Amino acid sequence: MSHNTFGHLFRVTTWGESHGPALGCIVDGCPPGLPLTPEMLQVFLDQRRPGTSRFVTQRKEPDAIKILSGVFEDDRTGGPVTTGTPISLMIENMDQRSKDYSEIRDRYRPGHADFTYDAKYGVRDYRGGGRSSARETAARVAAGGVARQVLGSGITLRACVTQIGPHKASPNRNWEHRDTNPFFAADEAVVPVWEKFLDETRKAGSSAGAIIEVEAVGVPAGWGAPVYGKLDAEIAAALMSINAAKAVEIGAGFDAAMLSGETNADQMRSGEDGPEFLSNNNGGIAGGISTGQPVVARLAIKPTSSILTAVQSVTREGENVEVSTKGRHDPCVGIRAVPVAEAMLACILADAKLRHRGQVG
Amino acid sequence: MSHNTFGHLFRVTTWGESHGPALGCIVDGCPPGLPLTPEMLQVFLDQRRPGTSRFVTQRKEPDAIKILSGVFEDDRTGGPVTTGTPISLMIENMDQRSKDYSEIRDRYRPGHADFTYDAKYGVRDYRGGGRSSARETAARVAAGGVARQVLGSGITLRACVTQIGPHKASPNRNWEHRDTNPFFAADEAVVPVWEKFLDETRKAGSSAGAIIEVEAVGVPAGWGAPVYGKLDAEIAAALMSINAAKAVEIGAGFDAAMLSGETNADQMRSGEDGPEFLSNNNGGIAGGISTGQPVVARLAIKPTSSILTAVQSVTREGENVEVSTKGRHDPCVGIRAVPVAEAMLACILADAKLRHRGQVG
Amino acid sequence: MSHNTFGHLFRVTTWGESHGPALGCIVDGCPPGLPLTPEMLQVFLDQRRPGTSRFVTQRKEPDAIKILSGVFEDDRTGGPVTTGTPISLMIENMDQRSKDYSEIRDRYRPGHADFTYDAKYGVRDYRGGGRSSARETAARVAAGGVARQVLGSGITLRACVTQIGPHKASPNRNWEHRDTNPFFAADEAVVPVWEKFLDETRKAGSSAGAIIEVEAVGVPAGWGAPVYGKLDAEIAAALMSINAAKAVEIGAGFDAAMLSGETNADQMRSGEDGPEFLSNNNGGIAGGISTGQPVVARLAIKPTSSILTAVQSVTREGENVEVSTKGRHDPCVGIRAVPVAEAMLACILADAKLRHRGQVG
Amino acid sequence: MSHNTFGHLFRVTTWGESHGPALGCIVDGCPPGLPLTPEMLQVFLDQRRPGTSRFVTQRKEPDAIKILSGVFEDDRTGGPVTTGTPISLMIENMDQRSKDYSEIRDRYRPGHADFTYDAKYGVRDYRGGGRSSARETAARVAAGGVARQVLGSGITLRACVTQIGPHKASPNRNWEHRDTNPFFAADEAVVPVWEKFLDETRKAGSSAGAIIEVEAVGVPAGWGAPVYGKLDAEIAAALMSINAAKAVEIGAGFDAAMLSGETNADQMRSGEDGPEFLSNNNGGIAGGISTGQPVVARLAIKPTSSILTAVQSVTREGENVEVSTKGRHDPCVGIRAVPVAEAMLACILADAKLRHRGQVG
Repeated sequence: MSHNTFGHLFRVTTWGESHGPALGCIVDGCPPGLPLTPEMLQVFLDQRRPGTSRFVTQRKEPDAIKILSGVFEDDRTGGPVTTGTPISLMIENMDQRSKDYSEIRDRYRPGHADFTYDAKYGVRDYRGGGRSSARETAARVAAGGVARQVLGSGITLRACVTQIGPHKASPNRNWEHRDTNPFFAADEAVVPVWEKFLDETRKAGSSAGAIIEVEAVGVPAGWGAPVYGKLDAEIAAALMSINAAKAVEIGAGFDAAMLSGETNADQMRSGEDGPEFLSNNNGGIAGGISTGQPVVARLAIKPTSSILTAVQSVTREGENVEVSTKGRHDPCVGIRAVPVAEAMLACILADAKLRHRGQVG
Repeated sequence: MSHNTFGHLFRVTTWGESHGPALGCIVDGCPPGLPLTPEMLQVFLDQRRPGTSRFVTQRKEPDAIKILSGVFEDDRTGGPVTTGTPISLMIENMDQRSKDYSEIRDRYRPGHADFTYDAKYGVRDYRGGGRSSARETAARVAAGGVARQVLGSGITLRACVTQIGPHKASPNRNWEHRDTNPFFAADEAVVPVWEKFLDETRKAGSSAGAIIEVEAVGVPAGWGAPVYGKLDAEIAAALMSINAAKAVEIGAGFDAAMLSGETNADQMRSGEDGPEFLSNNNGGIAGGISTGQPVVARLAIKPTSSILTAVQSVTREGENVEVSTKGRHDPCVGIRAVPVAEAMLACILADAKLRHRGQVG
Repeated sequence: MSHNTFGHLFRVTTWGESHGPALGCIVDGCPPGLPLTPEMLQVFLDQRRPGTSRFVTQRKEPDAIKILSGVFEDDRTGGPVTTGTPISLMIENMDQRSKDYSEIRDRYRPGHADFTYDAKYGVRDYRGGGRSSARETAARVAAGGVARQVLGSGITLRACVTQIGPHKASPNRNWEHRDTNPFFAADEAVVPVWEKFLDETRKAGSSAGAIIEVEAVGVPAGWGAPVYGKLDAEIAAALMSINAAKAVEIGAGFDAAMLSGETNADQMRSGEDGPEFLSNNNGGIAGGISTGQPVVARLAIKPTSSILTAVQSVTREGENVEVSTKGRHDPCVGIRAVPVAEAMLACILADAKLRHRGQVG
Repeated sequence: MSHNTFGHLFRVTTWGESHGPALGCIVDGCPPGLPLTPEMLQVFLDQRRPGTSRFVTQRKEPDAIKILSGVFEDDRTGGPVTTGTPISLMIENMDQRSKDYSEIRDRYRPGHADFTYDAKYGVRDYRGGGRSSARETAARVAAGGVARQVLGSGITLRACVTQIGPHKASPNRNWEHRDTNPFFAADEAVVPVWEKFLDETRKAGSSAGAIIEVEAVGVPAGWGAPVYGKLDAEIAAALMSINAAKAVEIGAGFDAAMLSGETNADQMRSGEDGPEFLSNNNGGIAGGISTGQPVVARLAIKPTSSILTAVQSVTREGENVEVSTKGRHDPCVGIRAVPVAEAMLACILADAKLRHRGQVG
C-alpha cells in the first residue's frame, strides 16, 4: 500500500477526482491469457452504480468502463484476453454538476476529509470531495473484476450488509436473497426493517452506518506471507482503506476476546482431503496464512457525513459556520460499499495467489 | 508490508525463530543524528519481557538488546547517534529448552499456525512455533524504540488493556496507574477483577482474550497518504499483523455503524491554533490523514492457543489426536501485546512523518 | 522499479500499446502546489514527436497530452496547480494503421521483443510491437515534465547525441546549438557528417546506433540512498529501461577502468561554498550520493531493429523465414531517445529529492 | 532497490559497517525446502576474502558466515533446508584496527564517499569508510549463495576480469583457468602481464581499475518484467550498486552503437528446441526479457581510491590538506568484485525466476 497503489505482484493504481473528466485505474502484473471484456467488469460496476434505489445517491452516472490497454485478441480463441501488460481502465464522469458544491469551497464539512486534505496539501479539489470522494471506489470495483479472473471460478466472493444503524440481519446468510433487495441483505426478514429505518433517517435529514461481511469460499490453504504481509493484515489494510471504514475484523473478531481458549480454538479432525475444522473462529486465516476454510471479514462503515441537518464547523479562514449538505447523497453509504469490499478482497487474494506461486511454485 | 518488512521510508525487517540462536531486526531509513543507546530500547523490551508476573509466561529471557550497526559517535556531543545507515538490532535467545516441544513435532496445535505453515512451506521449525511465535514481537518493540526517537518528545504513545475476557475496564483512562499493575490497566478498579478471572482461567487450564487500546497524542494534522496508504489503513495492517490479533478499529470503530450522521460527525469550532473538534469519533484520522486530534486505535487479541485443556486435532499424517500444551505459556497473551501495539503505532507514525516531509516538505 | 512502475515517493506508472486507443501514465506522490498545464508538458513531447525530420519515423502523431486528474485551481493564484493526488496523463493514438503490421503477426522480428514477449506471455499485441514499442516513451516524457516542476528552475537538465554509428561529436558541448539541428547535437560541425551518414544508412535499408549524454547541473550534494538505492544505480536502471538501450555509464564510465588512482580521483580544494572538485570523473556521484557537481551519464542505443534489409528469422510455428520491415521507422532511434533520457533523469532526481527530504529533512 | 534492500520476491537487505562488530544480511522470500549450510556459502565468501594474494588487501578477515534463522532440519532428509522464513546471515568483523583510520576522521579522501556521506547525513562512521566500505559486499556474496540454490544446478553463473588498467585479456574465455590465478582471469596469457602491471602500480603507490564480465548460462526464455522491471534494467542497477562501479553494459553494450542494424540484430533459425540465435549481441535479453541465450553483462570498476600517493583534499572545516592512505588496501579493487558481480546477478535472476513464476505460473 503506497500512496495510490496497492498489491505486490497484482498491483492496482487508481486516479481521478469526483468531478474531474474521468477516473480509472491501472492493473499491473495480471497473468496473461485470461478472458477480459468490458462487460465482465460492468456487471460489478452496475452493483455499485448510484441511482439504483431511493436508499442510495441519485447522481446519474452510467459508470461505463473502457479498457484502454493490456487486452488483445487471443490467437487461438480470437477472443480478448489479458496480455500480461498493464490494463488501463477508465470511467468518464458524466453528471458533474459542479455548481452544487460551490458553497463548500471554503467551509470544512465535518466527517469529511476537507480539513485534512487542506492541512496536508494546502490546496484541494473541493468539488464533491475531489480525490477523497467515494466515487474513487468505482475504480476499485473495476480492478476487482480483473482480480476475479485471476482467482478463477473455484473461488466464490460474496458480501452482504449485516447491520444498518442498530438493526442487525439474521446471522444465517441466505445468499440467494442478496440481490433481490436494495440493501444487499442476505436475509429477507430484515429488508422491511431497514426500509422503514432508512426512510425515517432520510426524512430526518440524517444518515446511518452499516456493517458489511465479505467472504471468499474456496481459497486453498497456504496463501499469505508472514509476518508483515500476513493475509489478514493485508485484508485489514484493504478494507480500512475504503471510504468511511472505521473497523475491520477477521472471523470471530472482537468477540474472540471474550471466548475461552478452548472455545475459540478451531479444533480439527481428519477428513478426506486433509484436516477439517470444527469451527471457523479464525475466519480462514491462522498465522497470517489461509487455512482452506472460508476467509471471512467484516468492516464498519460510519454514517454518511453529508447530511441535511446542520452541524457546526469552521471556514478555511477560521470563522465559525454551520454546514448542511444539500443535493444527492447516500443516506447509508455502507450499502454501496458491498461491491467495493468484494473487489478489495478479490484484489488481495489475487495478489496472494501470485505471490504464493512465486515463492513456493 | 512485504513478507517480513514494513514501512516505506522508515523500514523495519525482522528475522528469527522462537528457538533459534537469536532474533532481531534491521531498521532502515532512520534519520541521522538521533541519540540511540541500547538502554533507550531496553526499557520497552523490559515491558514485553516474559516472567514479570504470574499472568505471563515464565520463560526466562533477559531480552538484552544489542546494536550492531547504524550508530556512531556524534562529533559534537560525543554520544552515540544514528548515522542514517541500517540499524541492526539483535537479541540472543537464552532459554531455548527445545525438549519441551518435541511432542508437537507432528501434531498441529489448534489455533496456532502449525498447520498453515506446513500447508504453505512443507517444512517448519516446530520448536515453539518457530517463526510464528510471539517471540518475534520483541524485534518489533526494539524497532519501536527507534521510531520513538524519530517522533520526538512532542508525541506521546501509550497503550493499555481495556478488556480481559468479558471484563471491561472503565472507559476513563487513568494513565498514571498503567504501570502499577501487571495488566497495563489504566484503571485501578479493574485490577482485582482481572486477577481473580485470570487466576481461575489458569487453574482451569484455559486462557483468555483481551482488547487493547493504543493512542498517540500530539500527532500534527496532515500525516498519511491517501488513498491506499491511508494512515488508518497502515495502522490496521500493522496492528492486525501482531500475533493473535483478530480485529482493529479506529476511533468509534464498530460503534460508528450505530450512530446517526450528526452524532458521529466530529463538529468543529474555531480555536486558537486552528479548528478544534468537539468529539473524536474519527480517532484522529479523516480521509486517511491525521486531524491533529489523538490517534486512537483498538485491537482484539484472541485467547492464547496453547492451553492445558485437551483439544481435538490431527497429526501431519492425518491421524486424529488430542493436544494439550504443557509448559510455560501466557494465560492471556494480550497483556504482553501492549508494548507491541505501541511499537507498531510508533513505527507507522515515524514512517508517515518522513513520507509527509518527503512529499510536502 | 516494479513491472510498469518506478520511483519510491515520486512514482510513475505507464500503460498503453503502440496501436491501442491511447497510452499514458500516472504520476503519484507529486508535491502539491506546483503549477502544471498541458502546455508545460507538450513542449517536451514535441521534442520526442515523430515526423519532425527525415531522420526520424514519419508516423503522424500529434502526441497531444491531456491532464485527467491531480491538478486544480489554486485559490491564491487561480492558476492550475498540482494537488498532491495522482496526476493522470493521457495521449490518444491517432495514426494507428494496423494493416502495416499484419505480416509480422506470426514472424519474430530479430532485435525486437517479439519472441521474448511470446516466450513469456504466450500472447502479444503484435501491432507495432505492442507494449514493447518505443511509443511507450511518450508517457515517460510527459512524466518527466512533471518531475521538472518538482526539481524547480535551479536544476538544468539537458541531453545530446554524442555519437551516431562510428561518428563522434566534439567532446566540447555547445548547448546553444542543440536545438538548431535535427540530431540534438551540441556540436555544429558534426551535423553534416551525421546527415550524410544517416542518409546513406537509410538508402542502404539499414539503421544506426547512437550514444547519448545526459546531465543535470545544480543538483545539491547529498541526494541518493545507499547502498542499493544509490543515485547511480537508480540512474542506471532508469536509462537501461529505455527501449534499445544496451549500456550506461556515469562520469568517466568505462574509461575509469584505464585511469590510475591519482588521475581518476576527483581532488578537492576549499572553495567559497564548500569543497570544490578539480575534475568530475565520478560524474557527480560518490558512494551513491550526489557531490554537488553536474550529474553526468551516457547511454548506448543500439541500431533500430526494424530495417528494410532482409534478415533471417523464424515464425511462431518454427518455420525459417526472412523478415524485412516496410513502413515508417527511425533510421536512428537514438535521436528521439534524447528527450526520453532527460525525462528519466528528471524523474529519478525528483524522487531522490523527495526521499532525501523525507529522511534528512 | 530501496535504501539497503533489493529484490521484489527474493529480497536482500544488508547492514553493517567496515569496523563495527559485525555485518550481515537478511534474505527474505526464499522458497522453502532448499538445502542450505554455512559451508555452501563459505565457498563464495572465500573467493572474496582479503589476504589471498599480494594483489588484494592484506586485512585479516576469516569472513566466517553464520546462519541465524530461516533454516531447519528437513523431516525427510534430516538435513538443513530453508523454511521460507527470513534467512539471517552474519559475519563478525575480526581485524578492526581502528587506529589506522584516526587521521582520516576529519579529512575527506578523494574518490571515496567521505564527503558525500557527510553532506547527506552530517555524521558518519569514518573508520574504513563505515557503511560505504567495500566490506559490505561480503553480505552480498553470502546472499548470492542463497540465490544460487534458488536457481539450481541448471544455471551456471561465472564472472572473470577481462581488463586491468589498459591491459585486456583475450576475448576467448577459458573458464577452466579462472581459478588458477589470483586475478580471476579466464585467460592464462594475460596473467604475467597483469602481475607485472599491478606490481608496478603498487610500488608506484597508485592503483588500477578493471573491467569484469559476468554471465549466466542456462537462463530460460521469459524472465524479466517490462517495462521498468526489465531484466537488463535490474541487472544494471544491481551491478552499478557495487562499490566503485562506474559503467554497465549488456551484450554488445557500447559497441552496439557502432554496428549497423543488420549486423547487430541477432538473427534466428529454427532449432530443435525452438528458435536458435546466430549471435548474442543482445546479451541474452530483448525487450527486458531473457531470450534463452547466455545473459552477459560487463561492469567497469574504477581504480581504488585509497592510494599511497598524496592527493589534494579538504577537511570538514574547509582547510586544504593532502591525503595519502597508509595501510592495507587493494591495488585493484576490481579483482575482488568478481564474486560480488556473480552474487548480484544470482540474486537478480533468483528474483526474476520467482516473479515470472508468480505472474505466469
